[in-house]
Amino acid sequence: MNDRRDLERLCIHTVTTKPLSLEKAVESYGRAGVKGITVWRDALEGHEPRAAGRRIRDAGLEVVSLCRGGFFPAASEAARREAVDENRRIVDEAAALGAPLIVLVCGAVPGMPLAEARRQIADGIAAVLPHAREAGVALGVEPLHPMYADSRSAVNTLAQANDLCRKLAHPSLGVVVDVYHLWWDPDLEREIERAGGSILAFHVSDWKTPTEDLLLDRGLMGEGCIPIRGIREWVEAAGFGGYNEVEIFSRRRWEMDQSELLEEIVEAYQLHS
Amino acid sequence: MNDRRDLERLCIHTVTTKPLSLEKAVESYGRAGVKGITVWRDALEGHEPRAAGRRIRDAGLEVVSLCRGGFFPAASEAARREAVDENRRIVDEAAALGAPLIVLVCGAVPGMPLAEARRQIADGIAAVLPHAREAGVALGVEPLHPMYADSRSAVNTLAQANDLCRKLAHPSLGVVVDVYHLWWDPDLEREIERAGGSILAFHVSDWKTPTEDLLLDRGLMGEGCIPIRGIREWVEAAGFGGYNEVEIFSRRRWEMDQSELLEEIVEAYQLHS
Repeated sequence: MNDRRDLERLCIHTVTTKPLSLEKAVESYGRAGVKGITVWRDALEGHEPRAAGRRIRDAGLEVVSLCRGGFFPAASEAARREAVDENRRIVDEAAALGAPLIVLVCGAVPGMPLAEARRQIADGIAAVLPHAREAGVALGVEPLHPMYADSRSAVNTLAQANDLCRKLAHPSLGVVVDVYHLWWDPDLEREIERAGGSILAFHVSDWKTPTEDLLLDRGLMGEGCIPIRGIREWVEAAGFGGYNEVEIFSRRRWEMDQSELLEEIVEAYQLHS
Repeated sequence: MNDRRDLERLCIHTVTTKPLSLEKAVESYGRAGVKGITVWRDALEGHEPRAAGRRIRDAGLEVVSLCRGGFFPAASEAARREAVDENRRIVDEAAALGAPLIVLVCGAVPGMPLAEARRQIADGIAAVLPHAREAGVALGVEPLHPMYADSRSAVNTLAQANDLCRKLAHPSLGVVVDVYHLWWDPDLEREIERAGGSILAFHVSDWKTPTEDLLLDRGLMGEGCIPIRGIREWVEAAGFGGYNEVEIFSRRRWEMDQSELLEEIVEAYQLHS
């Protein structure tokens, strides 16, 4: 039914194969024909970022982004300052790793009014941007599904992320489009068009029916109801020419043999992304 | 901190105390000082609606609405016609029961493009409205949280529900504001204001952190992060003067003694609604 895609723009997030060490992930991705890797910070633990970046490139992979920065809102001024400092350190880590982009999960605090969290997010990003620019690293605001508005991100639509980018108007700031978070939005096509050249990354996975867990039950592309190819077309029409990044949190799939999982991903990507 | 509210506008959905039969629910609500009841169709099964309505009113309770109609989108023309017929029967049931309102969970079909589902919803509602008007029953479009866009409702924001009402422009059509579904929306205050007099019902519960289940882990008011009183103020400023309806699906609370649950609800309502 669908054309088979080649793998030139296939990137995988290390969290998708969480049981693998970074070394093992790099080796397995390369063998599977994957071209890009987005590194999660937990996978970097215990590694010197510069050496890790070199190892990734030596294996023929491109570092697409570092996941993740953000989590700016906090109850106290001191904690907000610490969040900004932490994000500056993440910028340094990304620069050392050779990641051109940090994905921002902006944060939320249960019980803090969302309007206040949104203000603190804008302030936090603004405070990190000069350092990001100096380091040559971009920041990508990833709107998260509204079911994460309590504790993970108060930025829940692409319209909000676009507004934030317009407000801060900085060359090192853009948005990340993740189909899992945004597919339901009736304004999605229009907001992708509005985002245009500020789209810095494109994440794919699928929404299963039923979804058994709010966090750890994402589906492989084609397993659910998200019109991934349609959204990809909108994103490309808006000017995006980067990777399609497979980001799947799935307790069930973390339990399986990760080489088999990689085969499944490659197949699903070719058919449904 | 908050003023204690009296119970004059407290309504409970039968699903909140799902283990209770309709008779038992009516008796227990009355004893707890609850003034209104929204009847779910599963609770009506095996009852003659007219007699059930009389029994509810004799117990001093007001029937606030019947839950639920809707589920209009379907793959075949025949199934869509059947959905419209079923909704007409629900209108008759509501009229017999003495319910002035049917809450519509509009429906969605996994894999059907949302734009198509949204068209079918508009067509389905339009086909039921004349019969509803004749019967003196209003239809209330309830936008559902985006996490239900796959299979329960393709109407996921109040903006969409407002647009639908504007498009169909019918005196028997309005919207239902449920804080659980809408609290995250950055446009909520504006859309409540736009809805104005078309707000037909107001549902309360709370969003827990963490939420363990997509469907059956709602919290009691005050247990989560939803600014219920703030949203209630917006709704009242828009002209709404009806009940605050407690609608909580909670596997854990269905397992407890339902009289104790009613006490908890009354207390939570007084403090946090």
